[in-house]
Amino acid sequence: MRIYGDIQSGNCYKVKLLAALLDIEHVWTHVDILAGETGTNTFLEMNPNGKIPLLVLDDGRRLAESNAILNFLADGSKLLPTEAYARAQVLQWQFFEQYSHEPYIAVARFIAKYLGLPAARKAEYEEKQAGGHKALRVMEVHLAEQPYCVGKALTIADVSLYAYTHVAHEGGFELKQYPAVQAWLNRVAATPGYVGMDN
Amino acid sequence: MRIYGDIQSGNCYKVKLLAALLDIEHVWTHVDILAGETGTNTFLEMNPNGKIPLLVLDDGRRLAESNAILNFLADGSKLLPTEAYARAQVLQWQFFEQYSHEPYIAVARFIAKYLGLPAARKAEYEEKQAGGHKALRVMEVHLAEQPYCVGKALTIADVSLYAYTHVAHEGGFELKQYPAVQAWLNRVAATPGYVGMDN
Repeated sequence: MRIYGDIQSGNCYKVKLLAALLDIEHVWTHVDILAGETGTNTFLEMNPNGKIPLLVLDDGRRLAESNAILNFLADGSKLLPTEAYARAQVLQWQFFEQYSHEPYIAVARFIAKYLGLPAARKAEYEEKQAGGHKALRVMEVHLAEQPYCVGKALTIADVSLYAYTHVAHEGGFELKQYPAVQAWLNRVAATPGYVGMDN
Repeated sequence: MRIYGDIQSGNCYKVKLLAALLDIEHVWTHVDILAGETGTNTFLEMNPNGKIPLLVLDDGRRLAESNAILNFLADGSKLLPTEAYARAQVLQWQFFEQYSHEPYIAVARFIAKYLGLPAARKAEYEEKQAGGHKALRVMEVHLAEQPYCVGKALTIADVSLYAYTHVAHEGGFELKQYPAVQAWLNRVAATPGYVGMDN
């Protein structure tokens, strides 16, 4: 299988991390978002929504959306429960990640780290802070009561939320006030097979 | 089971529509978002993220996030495939819906229909148009080639995308330029058991 992605994008890193945790053989093809490579006709033919990561199986079948890719690759592994309610809770946290977490934390990080916090986007950057802290508070309350997002072991819900949370400081989010989140970050990073964003 | 929701919210209507299609017995408890009922302490104890819909099972277990609820309720039914790739494609469209569709179309509709398009949010409303049309174009290309989002029959991916697409005009999105999307809307509405948003 081939994965199209940019390791500095948390959404792509999720897939890289999962592949490492499950030791999934793959070819990684770097796609440069800032250079507009997700908007070329060649790429849009593969993913009409023009986004990475994108998974292409050996038989040509394609799959977009980071969290859908995680569910597909982790199916049958210990990182995705089979019991219906546990599985639904994994999805609950993944949809929370895409709707209530990523649009604030990842976007603030993008504006600060990749665009250099230009004056034209300063107001947007500042508006993102409240939503990001709200998401972090929801995580803090939950992770103060249990070691992982769902149940007592790591699942792909943790992989999804780890991706942008562990670099949230690059978007201006100080994590000192979220001790349970910090402890959870360390727990995820200590998982056998773990790789960081720089690998 | 009890479902907390507001039928005028597309995210809540998804659950109502699915329950009707699968004939799932439930109690519907109306929650008034505009009156701040998702922000009360009582509600936040049930869902710390302060959002509807929220599913509460008879044994007290809770589940948030509309698309997670759909996956849970449709598990084992004909509306959710069991084959791994088909199931992942369902998720791909549901994550597309929450990230690339809802934040534009649902938010534009909210600003126009519920807030009355106040001057202070006119610019935001107009900014939402491009993203909404981009999502509709992605759907048009896909639905011009196949009758439903995934495979040849209705799945919960269609339920998810139907919810805000069929009221997209209330957010200023003219659907005449998307004939395949319109034909698909009619196909979904003709499904046995279908209920509209006004039910």
